[in-house]
Amino acid sequence: MKERNEVILKTINRLLKEEKTERVIAVLGRLYPADAAEIVGSLDEEHQKAIFERWAPDQSASAFLELEEGDQVDIAENLTLNAISEILNEMPADDAADLVADLSGDLAENLLKSVRSEVETEIRALLKYGEDTAGGLMIPEAVTLKKNMTAEEAIDELRRMAPNVESIYYIFVINDENQLVGVVSLRDLIIAPASAMIKDIMNPDVIYVEATADQEETAKLISKYDLLALPVVDGDNHLLGVVTVDDVLDVVEDEATEDIYRLAGLTKEEKIASPVMDSFLKRVPWMVLNLGTAFLASSVVGLFEESISSVVTLAVFMPIVAGMGGNGGTQALAVTTRGIALGELELSSGLKALFKEGLIGLMIGLTTGLITAIVAFYWKGNVFLGLVLFLAMIINLLIAGLSGAGIPILLKRLGYDPALGSGIIITTFTDVFGFLAFLGLATFFLKYLI
Amino acid sequence: MKERNEVILKTINRLLKEEKTERVIAVLGRLYPADAAEIVGSLDEEHQKAIFERWAPDQSASAFLELEEGDQVDIAENLTLNAISEILNEMPADDAADLVADLSGDLAENLLKSVRSEVETEIRALLKYGEDTAGGLMIPEAVTLKKNMTAEEAIDELRRMAPNVESIYYIFVINDENQLVGVVSLRDLIIAPASAMIKDIMNPDVIYVEATADQEETAKLISKYDLLALPVVDGDNHLLGVVTVDDVLDVVEDEATEDIYRLAGLTKEEKIASPVMDSFLKRVPWMVLNLGTAFLASSVVGLFEESISSVVTLAVFMPIVAGMGGNGGTQALAVTTRGIALGELELSSGLKALFKEGLIGLMIGLTTGLITAIVAFYWKGNVFLGLVLFLAMIINLLIAGLSGAGIPILLKRLGYDPALGSGIIITTFTDVFGFLAFLGLATFFLKYLI
Repeated sequence: MKERNEVILKTINRLLKEEKTERVIAVLGRLYPADAAEIVGSLDEEHQKAIFERWAPDQSASAFLELEEGDQVDIAENLTLNAISEILNEMPADDAADLVADLSGDLAENLLKSVRSEVETEIRALLKYGEDTAGGLMIPEAVTLKKNMTAEEAIDELRRMAPNVESIYYIFVINDENQLVGVVSLRDLIIAPASAMIKDIMNPDVIYVEATADQEETAKLISKYDLLALPVVDGDNHLLGVVTVDDVLDVVEDEATEDIYRLAGLTKEEKIASPVMDSFLKRVPWMVLNLGTAFLASSVVGLFEESISSVVTLAVFMPIVAGMGGNGGTQALAVTTRGIALGELELSSGLKALFKEGLIGLMIGLTTGLITAIVAFYWKGNVFLGLVLFLAMIINLLIAGLSGAGIPILLKRLGYDPALGSGIIITTFTDVFGFLAFLGLATFFLKYLI
Repeated sequence: MKERNEVILKTINRLLKEEKTERVIAVLGRLYPADAAEIVGSLDEEHQKAIFERWAPDQSASAFLELEEGDQVDIAENLTLNAISEILNEMPADDAADLVADLSGDLAENLLKSVRSEVETEIRALLKYGEDTAGGLMIPEAVTLKKNMTAEEAIDELRRMAPNVESIYYIFVINDENQLVGVVSLRDLIIAPASAMIKDIMNPDVIYVEATADQEETAKLISKYDLLALPVVDGDNHLLGVVTVDDVLDVVEDEATEDIYRLAGLTKEEKIASPVMDSFLKRVPWMVLNLGTAFLASSVVGLFEESISSVVTLAVFMPIVAGMGGNGGTQALAVTTRGIALGELELSSGLKALFKEGLIGLMIGLTTGLITAIVAFYWKGNVFLGLVLFLAMIINLLIAGLSGAGIPILLKRLGYDPALGSGIIITTFTDVFGFLAFLGLATFFLKYLI
């Protein structure tokens, strides 16, 4: 598929050079929107503008919404107000609202005034919800039926109204107050006898989510119950819209990227293709913060300059104690944050996880401490050096396990993202306490080490 | 939903104490399979056995396949051969094959002999493909039609055959050689005029995947084209089965967990609820390997014992140079591995990514090196110490950026997982070269530092 796109891209570049924009649009129109977006996304600004301004709105909207969010904003700012509002008219309302939320206030306001009034109403309604909630993720339309209808009547009704709805996954059954009372899958509707009543084939125990719920909770429900779409309701069980599984797939990928990035001290928005200066400006504050904590660790070492000056070998072993603590802490942190993200760790079992990671830290400290002690004894010929390293490793890996599990659990309980900043706090802990334990013990046994 | 399950669990525990297993089964039967699995999964082995052995196979299969893979194996080994083979008869073939693949050879072989013969054939066919390929992920059945049929005839045909198929997402159109020639969504079928011909409403440009393709590629296609299901074909375009979006959601979550774990030096299988001894045994080899590389870094420090002995302050600044290099490398590594995982980094643009990360490393090295130099100068009053730190930080962060991007790209090009082992290699690089640069430069300028 990728190779095919590259061949098409070459053709399109040739056609653009010959200024045959209409031909380019004809070629793009025959592709899947995702492929057309991939190709248009790799063209320069001027050609993107030329294409989107002459393309039929329904087709350009399909391709436009497959672009990366950053590219969407760049192109939208570049197009005439008329061209972008025609695209917006044809986009699913959830994607349109996400785009409007990302534009500057003035442009957003002008755009909302120039789209069709029912589109404006839908977008404004969605903008009330945060981009990261079920409400922000939903398409504010659902295929609904009443329960006193036969399967055949329902199919006829669908045939009449379906062309207006982007995709049908389930049909939701509502009462006269627009409250959700059941769900029928398209499959169940088709295989039911033509005369079966909707109320008899529907499932009255509908899985739903409230509009204000977080997108992670929404994703978990769809994943747990293997759903294609999840109905979104308000506090009184009125049906507001549906979140579809393809949006949730994006959420799961985004949340995973966010976790990996936050554990490494990066912000969510950075991409492998971001410009150097953008990446630098996003990473440097974090690195300066890291530098501050590194100075903290180094000032702990400073407390023991005298001991190091009498036994220089201590400096040789410092990286081992600190490094192993950092690694142990990172392992405990990865298991704990992932457990929280996947919903496997209930907060009530936090104490159990803390105890477990402390115990594992202790066991790893014993094992690697023993190896370190033996190597140090054979290398430097001093049994007390071995003893000091053994004890320091046990203490530091215990602290690593406890902080690696405890800090994300604590952050989560305080309402913060458990991945954000955990890494830096834990490395600071293991550096500071690692040096304190190792150099403190060495100072205590100093006369045996010289 | 969670609270509801806890209330039900209490009721079930009471019923189990009173040995009313039939009542328990009645309660479980009214739940969504995912909820029933959550509850059964938290019971002890004996009760799990009692429930699964008396439960109707179709219901127990639905709950069974929602259990974690590890729990499935434990329970399967515990049940009578008869009970587990009845469950297997009712499970979708892809899940059944995954379970059989995880069981011991003897048990697996006995099971395959005791299930229905068509189930055995299906499972054996799937076992040919790796668990992590499209073939291993697919359900070996698809709803197919021929193209010379009207929409109405197609719906009648579906009504006749659909009860045998787990879920219908798309209807695939095949020719007389069982080759894939088109696809029709259920929605398009329903909204088409009753007399429309399938060949006129089908999309002949089907997105498909070969059975031997990796599960990551499969997930990327479903995600890119927003599909509900992806047809799987052999080398001659014969339709073999379909991979559904709910399986892909699990793949995306698993791959993200795998990446996070591998970056932290953990194996995929570990969970927050794994027993302490399991976790310890899985983590300790990695930590011993880490210890080896830590000794490598420490032996670099050992080369400069004399310099440290004349200027003990060097020991104080060692953690800063090494720590900042490690952090910078981790940032570059996270961006690069995630870019590879999400398909944003083509191997052809690897050199560009390498250059970018090197440049960012240089810029961060300049910034944080300057800060470190100024702080060191004010703290210790020696301008040469500042200069040495400045240069060492630039060198180390350049190396951090280059290795953070270069090592995963190299691993990927050599056909390995880019996340596996990258972290440990990069930390070793930044430790070894960080100490070498800092202590080497310090030794060169030694007479100005004393």
